[in-house]
Amino acid sequence: MTDAAKAAAAVDEDRLWRRHMEMARLGATPAGGVRRLALDANDNEARRRLVDWARGFGFACALDPIGNLFIRREGSLREAPPVMTGSHTDTQPSGGKFDGIYGVLAACEALEALERAQIATRRPIEAVVWTCEEGGARFPMGTMGSSAFAGVRPLADILKVTDDAGISVEEALRGTRAALKGVPERPLGCQVAAFIEAHIEQGPELEARGLTIGVVTAIQGARRFLVEIAGEDAHAGTTTRARRKDALSAAVRMVSALERVFHDDPTDTVRFTVGRFRISPDAPAVVPGHALFTIDFRHPDEAVLTKLGDQVEALCRAQAGPCAVTVTETSRSRPVPFTSHVPDVIESAAARLDYARMRILSGAGHDAMHLAKLCPTGMIFVPCEKGISHNETENATAADLAAGTRVLAASLVELANA
Amino acid sequence: MTDAAKAAAAVDEDRLWRRHMEMARLGATPAGGVRRLALDANDNEARRRLVDWARGFGFACALDPIGNLFIRREGSLREAPPVMTGSHTDTQPSGGKFDGIYGVLAACEALEALERAQIATRRPIEAVVWTCEEGGARFPMGTMGSSAFAGVRPLADILKVTDDAGISVEEALRGTRAALKGVPERPLGCQVAAFIEAHIEQGPELEARGLTIGVVTAIQGARRFLVEIAGEDAHAGTTTRARRKDALSAAVRMVSALERVFHDDPTDTVRFTVGRFRISPDAPAVVPGHALFTIDFRHPDEAVLTKLGDQVEALCRAQAGPCAVTVTETSRSRPVPFTSHVPDVIESAAARLDYARMRILSGAGHDAMHLAKLCPTGMIFVPCEKGISHNETENATAADLAAGTRVLAASLVELANA
Repeated sequence: MTDAAKAAAAVDEDRLWRRHMEMARLGATPAGGVRRLALDANDNEARRRLVDWARGFGFACALDPIGNLFIRREGSLREAPPVMTGSHTDTQPSGGKFDGIYGVLAACEALEALERAQIATRRPIEAVVWTCEEGGARFPMGTMGSSAFAGVRPLADILKVTDDAGISVEEALRGTRAALKGVPERPLGCQVAAFIEAHIEQGPELEARGLTIGVVTAIQGARRFLVEIAGEDAHAGTTTRARRKDALSAAVRMVSALERVFHDDPTDTVRFTVGRFRISPDAPAVVPGHALFTIDFRHPDEAVLTKLGDQVEALCRAQAGPCAVTVTETSRSRPVPFTSHVPDVIESAAARLDYARMRILSGAGHDAMHLAKLCPTGMIFVPCEKGISHNETENATAADLAAGTRVLAASLVELANA
Repeated sequence: MTDAAKAAAAVDEDRLWRRHMEMARLGATPAGGVRRLALDANDNEARRRLVDWARGFGFACALDPIGNLFIRREGSLREAPPVMTGSHTDTQPSGGKFDGIYGVLAACEALEALERAQIATRRPIEAVVWTCEEGGARFPMGTMGSSAFAGVRPLADILKVTDDAGISVEEALRGTRAALKGVPERPLGCQVAAFIEAHIEQGPELEARGLTIGVVTAIQGARRFLVEIAGEDAHAGTTTRARRKDALSAAVRMVSALERVFHDDPTDTVRFTVGRFRISPDAPAVVPGHALFTIDFRHPDEAVLTKLGDQVEALCRAQAGPCAVTVTETSRSRPVPFTSHVPDVIESAAARLDYARMRILSGAGHDAMHLAKLCPTGMIFVPCEKGISHNETENATAADLAAGTRVLAASLVELANA
């Protein structure tokens, strides 16, 4: 039996499931979901528990300046760049029990499996918690920790980002560090031999095809916009239609016009979402003078991202009527193909473990997209029920979570010994 | 010179303006408007100042069980039903300096003018502050105090109404009573000889025609609806259009469909407003699973209110797509014609004072619509700048405010001596 097979065999399905259920209590919602916003008390407590767990095995822990947490199992080549694996502990405001946390718990379970099976690796292996992956949940910026680590965004800029209550990332990190007393600091960034992120698919493909493992080949690109509309507050009972500057009406026309353009039925590859929509003063008897909404547009093809995304502003302007409109592109990420050998390593591991599998595109953005700029990178998807995610009813099976973790453990051994 | 003319002459424009500016400080917003929500600390303070002012003249004050405040100038016939005049002190969340408070300060100025001019009347005259006129600002129910007074709604039901923070009217009234220590209580309701409410027009007609006084002949009717849409939260990056149950998209289709039906260009008499519109979880990367919006629909013709209003539910259902929709009619008020002699008394007073005037329809609902069920009722409108109201920039001139108050004072003398 190879070390990779031993590592896979040492993964404990029950232990892994129990840890998911324990983590789900941190920020549990009445409807069975999780609201664990980046760097909030529950998110800090999740890390604290991981550190406790790591200390039990003698794994070294460290925090970098953006709060990414690293848990290291040493290799025989102590100076060699580590193989990394992990994901995030934060959730959407009405999130589920598996998005993000699965990749973290799978990473830890893989380390524990290697330890229990007494498997030595040449390179160190580090389990990582990337800070604040979920953009727009607490802070407007997502994949915060991994983008800082990869040098995609300047740390100083990220630390200044604030939540709706005006609390900056820098301030919030003080609470995280206080919750993790005794965890040493390490500098931002380092050489990485390879990175694998395990994640629920957040889409329906694996379940629909009865498959267990998705070998991710690329992450689609995304463009995000903020549309702000200024009209004029007015009395609902007296102001004639002709004299209104109704920001809600303008926003409704804009969203209608955008929805007419942003689709590609029956291919259905375009992802167009207005996820935030607010008006003010938001009073039933007042014609709303202000409105804002966000656009989240994703596609695997950079040419389509450019062609459709570049129409947003004109489409909004054309529907503004008597209102003023400002369109801001708040972020843009190109599609990220995983071009290294890592997807092949993952696929081979899945094949040896005899899991039904497919190559798959990631519809969502992940921390892995930033790591792909630094090092050979791949992702392992496992099915999630009906493809539902970013939702309190998000679900996955213990068997599928364990299968993904076995593929991960085996792949890590291969990469760490390569 | 008649007593009515003497009363009108004793109205002091500067004093009236100064009191408006003083009241505007209670809940002043940075943009120059007023946010004085029903029964909040500022609203209570406004009443406290009125009581202080009343005590200076020896006018008796009383609070009824819904918090309506009465300031009474005695008549020679102490047992006769009083003539009443007044309006409200609460504002919309982003309200102005004149809506409501003008009718209260005009009522007080009229009492002061009669007092200073030493004019005796046969009937008592009472200045009234009606509780919580602005529906949907703090509490979902508007014209709360006047509807309780007129017996339109049961007091027990009104006291149970809660604001967004879960505070009931009953609890809020404890704060109001505490702020008005020493003001005696009186029972709900009483016989009323006549009622006049002075108010800014909240529409453009008087200003556009260069007129000073609007003699209100009727208040248009209103129907209000709450539309709630249930879809399914889903991941913005992975969920195909075909599988989405997007509550925002459904709401946008509904508002578009409603706007296509609810207008009567070029007559432009239909008032259709979606003033509140909220989605959840309101996160940029999540397909919204829930949405709600309000409809405020007004028209002077009961037949049109019925014909168009009865289509709301069907129009929403037709656009629901994969979502579930619930349409609730939250309130309905019929058009209220002012059929008594009071409009004639007001028009005659305006004519004798030589103010340019017109008969006019009220686009907004007012406390006067409930009083009209109890007693002969009328309203006096004065121009407001560009017809803008329910807006922080709401404006009126000191001269127009004083003109309306002179007409009010003269009319009160006529009615109290009739």
